[in-house]
Amino acid sequence: MIVTVTANPALDVTYRIGALEPGAVIRPAEVRKRAGGKGINVARVLHALGRETLAIAPVGGTDAELFREDLAAAGIPHRLTAIDGATRRTTALVAPDDVTLVNEPGPRMSEVDWQRLTGEVGKHLEHAGVLVCSGSLPPGAPLDGYAQLIVLAKNAGVPTVLDTSGEALREGIKSGPDVVKPNADELRELTGDPHELRAGGAGAVLVSLGPRGMLAATADGTWLARPSRKLDGNTTGAGDAAVAGIAMNLHRSWPEVLRHAVALSAAAVLGPLAGDADLAHYRRELGAVTVEETHATGVNG
Amino acid sequence: MIVTVTANPALDVTYRIGALEPGAVIRPAEVRKRAGGKGINVARVLHALGRETLAIAPVGGTDAELFREDLAAAGIPHRLTAIDGATRRTTALVAPDDVTLVNEPGPRMSEVDWQRLTGEVGKHLEHAGVLVCSGSLPPGAPLDGYAQLIVLAKNAGVPTVLDTSGEALREGIKSGPDVVKPNADELRELTGDPHELRAGGAGAVLVSLGPRGMLAATADGTWLARPSRKLDGNTTGAGDAAVAGIAMNLHRSWPEVLRHAVALSAAAVLGPLAGDADLAHYRRELGAVTVEETHATGVNG
Repeated sequence: MIVTVTANPALDVTYRIGALEPGAVIRPAEVRKRAGGKGINVARVLHALGRETLAIAPVGGTDAELFREDLAAAGIPHRLTAIDGATRRTTALVAPDDVTLVNEPGPRMSEVDWQRLTGEVGKHLEHAGVLVCSGSLPPGAPLDGYAQLIVLAKNAGVPTVLDTSGEALREGIKSGPDVVKPNADELRELTGDPHELRAGGAGAVLVSLGPRGMLAATADGTWLARPSRKLDGNTTGAGDAAVAGIAMNLHRSWPEVLRHAVALSAAAVLGPLAGDADLAHYRRELGAVTVEETHATGVNG
Repeated sequence: MIVTVTANPALDVTYRIGALEPGAVIRPAEVRKRAGGKGINVARVLHALGRETLAIAPVGGTDAELFREDLAAAGIPHRLTAIDGATRRTTALVAPDDVTLVNEPGPRMSEVDWQRLTGEVGKHLEHAGVLVCSGSLPPGAPLDGYAQLIVLAKNAGVPTVLDTSGEALREGIKSGPDVVKPNADELRELTGDPHELRAGGAGAVLVSLGPRGMLAATADGTWLARPSRKLDGNTTGAGDAAVAGIAMNLHRSWPEVLRHAVALSAAAVLGPLAGDADLAHYRRELGAVTVEETHATGVNG
C-alpha cells in the first residue's frame, strides 16, 4: 500500500470558460469540484492504476464534507484528520488557450492539528510499502513537518518520496528521504545541482523537467529520460503523476523508475483534470520513453 | 420593514489580486466570503442605514452555513428557506485596474423549493412596508416567479420594486409592480423605451444609467437625475444600492426618490464590496445630485 500525505490540501474547483478577459463577467459552461492537493492527485492516479493506496490529509470547515464526499465517490481510500480552520479552495479557470490558477492560502494548522495528522500517518505505516509526502506545508505546520513524517517512516522501515519545495524541501532532505522530486524551478531555488541535495541527505534526486522529461541523480548513476513527444494538454498534476510512477516502481532499477514516471506524467497531460491520466497513453508511452545515462550535473538545456 | 427576496443568491467570494494574467498562478493577498445576491445587497445597504429590513432567500448545500453565518455576523435579519441543491458561488477577482466576475449558475429549484420560498414571503407581507424582488430567477423557478410574489404583495397592499432582467422582468411586469429598475442594457433587451414597460404594467420605470445617473418614467412625469461627478470604484452593487434608495423613499416625490437612489448608488461605488456604501458620501451627494424634468423617451446619449 502506498500512503500519501497532503499537508495542505484544497477543494479544487475547475471552471471551463470561453476566455479569460480581465474586467468581464464570466459565466462558466462547466463547474467541477473535487478533492485536491498534490498527494491526493498521487493517490488518484495510483487508484486509477489499481494500486492499493491511502490518502491522508487534514481538512476542516464546510468544504471538508465536499472533500470527503468526492474521495468516497471516487472510491479512493482515505483518512481525513480534523483541523480547526477551513480547507482552502484552488480555482482553475480553464480556457481553450490557457489555464489560470487562483490558489487560496491554506488555513493555519495548530499544534494539535499537526499532531492529529502525524498520529494518523503513524497508524498506517505498519501496512505501508511507501510513504509519499506531497505539496506545501500550511501556515502553522512545523517547518520540519515532512522531516518528522520521514523519520517515522524510516523507523518503520518504509521508503519515502518527498515532493515539496522551498524550506519544507530543505528541511525534509535532512531527514534522509529515499527520493525527492523537485521540478527544475524548485531545484534551482535551493541549488542548481541535484547532487548537492544528495549530499544533504536525499537518497536520490529525481528532477521533473516538464516536456523535456526527468533526470535522476542517484548513488548508482545519473540518467535522463525523455518522453517520445511534446504533448499539448493540462500540465497541472503531471508532476503528481510522475510521483505516482516513482512510488509504485521503487523496487525497480532507476532507468525503469524514470520510464514509468515519464510515461505517467505524459499520460497526465492528456487527462482532463489534475489527478487524471490517459492510461492507454501511459501504456503506449512506456515503450517509447528513451532513457540514457548522462554525466550532466545541472538541469539546464 | 422592507422585505427583500433574492431568488438566486450566491456566496460572494472576493479575491484581492495584483493583476489578472491569463495562464498565471495567482495567490490572492486577501480572501473574503459573504452572503451575496442582489436582494441581499439591498438589505445590507438598508441595514447600514438603520432601516428595518428582512432578507429572504433560498439556500442549500455546504455553503448555506457560511451564508447564514455571514448574515448573522452582519446583524442583517433574514429568513433562509431550504432547497435541495447547493447555493452557488460568485467569485470577484479584484485587481487594481479591473474586477473580473466568475458567476456560477444557480442550483435548480424544485416546485417544493419554490413553494417554500413563496410561503416564507407570504408570512412576512403583513408587516412589510415594501417588497423588493431582486436578481435572476434560478433554473427550475417558474418564469413568472416574481410576478407571483408581486401578486401576493398587491393582495396584502404592499408596494413592490422589481429589479431583474430578461424573461423574469418581462413576466414580472405583467403583474403590475409599482417600480421596475432595469439598467440601460436590461431595458434595451426588452425595448428602448421605458414608457413601453409602463404600458405593459409597470407603475414607474426607473432606469439606472451608471455614471450618468437615473431616469424615472412615471405617471406623473419623466425626470433625469445626475450625480455630481463620476467616481472611480467598485460598480458591483451600485444598482442594488439604488434599489435600496428607491424602496426606502417610495412615499416621497419621484424627484426625491431619484435623488436618494442616485446618491446611494454613488456612495456604493466607494464601498469596498457589493452591498457596502460610503454613508458620508451618500449624505454629501444628496444635496449635490441634480434632478430635472425631461421629455426624453429613450435612454441613450
